[in-house]
Amino acid sequence: MNKKIGKSSLVFPSKPKIVSTAAFVGPKEGEGPFGAVFDRICKDDTLGLDSFEQAESRMLESAVRLALDKIGKTPSDLDLFLGGDLLSQIIAAGFAARELGSPFLGMYGACSTMAESLLIAAMLTDGGFAKLSVCGASSHFSSSEREFRYPLEMGTQSPPTAQRTVTGAGAAAVAARDRRIEGAVFDNIVITGGTIGRVCDYGITDASNMGAAMAPAAASTICAHLADNGLEPVYYDRIITGDLGSFGSDMLCELCGSRGFDIRGVHSDCGKLIYSSSQKVVCGGSGCGCCASMLSSVLIPEISRGSWKRVLFAATGALLSPLSSLQGESIPSIAHAVVIERSEA
Amino acid sequence: MNKKIGKSSLVFPSKPKIVSTAAFVGPKEGEGPFGAVFDRICKDDTLGLDSFEQAESRMLESAVRLALDKIGKTPSDLDLFLGGDLLSQIIAAGFAARELGSPFLGMYGACSTMAESLLIAAMLTDGGFAKLSVCGASSHFSSSEREFRYPLEMGTQSPPTAQRTVTGAGAAAVAARDRRIEGAVFDNIVITGGTIGRVCDYGITDASNMGAAMAPAAASTICAHLADNGLEPVYYDRIITGDLGSFGSDMLCELCGSRGFDIRGVHSDCGKLIYSSSQKVVCGGSGCGCCASMLSSVLIPEISRGSWKRVLFAATGALLSPLSSLQGESIPSIAHAVVIERSEA
Repeated sequence: MNKKIGKSSLVFPSKPKIVSTAAFVGPKEGEGPFGAVFDRICKDDTLGLDSFEQAESRMLESAVRLALDKIGKTPSDLDLFLGGDLLSQIIAAGFAARELGSPFLGMYGACSTMAESLLIAAMLTDGGFAKLSVCGASSHFSSSEREFRYPLEMGTQSPPTAQRTVTGAGAAAVAARDRRIEGAVFDNIVITGGTIGRVCDYGITDASNMGAAMAPAAASTICAHLADNGLEPVYYDRIITGDLGSFGSDMLCELCGSRGFDIRGVHSDCGKLIYSSSQKVVCGGSGCGCCASMLSSVLIPEISRGSWKRVLFAATGALLSPLSSLQGESIPSIAHAVVIERSEA
Repeated sequence: MNKKIGKSSLVFPSKPKIVSTAAFVGPKEGEGPFGAVFDRICKDDTLGLDSFEQAESRMLESAVRLALDKIGKTPSDLDLFLGGDLLSQIIAAGFAARELGSPFLGMYGACSTMAESLLIAAMLTDGGFAKLSVCGASSHFSSSEREFRYPLEMGTQSPPTAQRTVTGAGAAAVAARDRRIEGAVFDNIVITGGTIGRVCDYGITDASNMGAAMAPAAASTICAHLADNGLEPVYYDRIITGDLGSFGSDMLCELCGSRGFDIRGVHSDCGKLIYSSSQKVVCGGSGCGCCASMLSSVLIPEISRGSWKRVLFAATGALLSPLSSLQGESIPSIAHAVVIERSEA
């Protein structure tokens, strides 16, 4: 059976399962509209540790452990942990992998990391190389501000296009179809396909306008996915992007529309959903942890419950560094898309 | 057929091929013992561009294009480019992927990135998700010094355990067994298996002693590989590590010996090979580009010519960041191993 469709889309004939998920978020995310559904919400975003970076790593590690604990597994049962984060040299994931002790493949796709990890996990599972793996990604408002923007102590004001980096981590356990998991949290969620992204760059140089930098990549991947598979947007109950925010979401709908795909009726964005308008976060949430925690605690449970049958989860990442911005480079972006479905079997 | 052996080792029944390679290195590497075999050697390590980071990205892009050009292909023929580098947010690979325009999966495994990319490419190829992909990795002495150590302008002296980050990029084109490549540079090189690494940390905190930080990870992966497969070290003609340097290589042999695997007779290290002793680089070369360029221009051609039949290529990466070091964290490391063989068919 051909597993490649078009130039960059894939199908997974064995339909790897997502059997458990977990999310661990910060206090501000806990006060948002989904505060009641995240597994854990911390009151102190340092978790009592010495640095924000250590706290972020601990949140990711905890999310992975919790997703495994829900199905009676431990990290020693894992074939593979795949994941990453936004920090230089992905230290949140690297240090989490040290504590978990399982085989580790480090990913960097900026805020697309959760989708990239799920795509690779699905391919490796379908290919017969893993029976049980966990994908995870994290971000932290305070570690990201230090990494990419200004010291928090400066108290800089956000411009109107800014998004707030989500403090949070999400983890999803992926199992082979023939790997029976007793007490799986979900027994009807499968990954059936996806599309690998290409880097897009429309010349945006403003690191406070990530939505505009990332929207072209989301449009490229979503339109490639629909075209490769010969689908109309309404084939999906929802097409859910990671963290374009309100400004980037508008751009995405425009760009898709101009290519003949009207996604307005089915599009949602995790960055627009995670905070309420009263929380004053300007254009919404961002960061690897935004779509990772929303996927884990909101989207997959909704699909499992029957709210949606088929979802295209398309997470975008901005591939800039603080140094590339200082050197005057524009912001290249990428989006990877994963098809997550409710299986009737 | 079972593709998993033991807890973390893999076999690739379809035996994906490495059909072409290319390496592009800096002036100092060009003056070393392998100066005659690298495809391109630059005289000016900025390539006339505005920054070392831009030069590194261009070197990686050029290595990928050259590996494709040798087999009459262009980036538009690629199913996938997999790769990474040492810089924050892997900007060398991200910007190279923007120029190449092919589907891209960003990896972060520090100096193990070339082995990680080859392992994933082999799994995706064996699984039927890619017919032609390129793996690439790069590093640059000057961008790394700025990223991890001191400004070059300070003229700091190297301690006796220091290694020099290689300025260089390597790329290897991986093709499915049934994808006929007219004019393949190599028609007898196959990837038959590998072992995915776990993060090890022996508590080393000295960022000028990477060999010591990484040797335990190399020992862990190499011993796991041999134990999983029930092999003695002499099964391989060479077991070649990435960039442990002279001090780390001694540690590796000690650690493997203490676990019952005497690898002294078959072990080589790209970091020890790439410079001559007269080049005064203390403990040898390091960086993603060290083993990537050596694999591309030296190891694979040697296997193809018949010098060796079977090689275990085990690249190690130190998963630290400048920030984690400043925060007093020790240096976790990881190693991934790939089995590269000459096929008789």
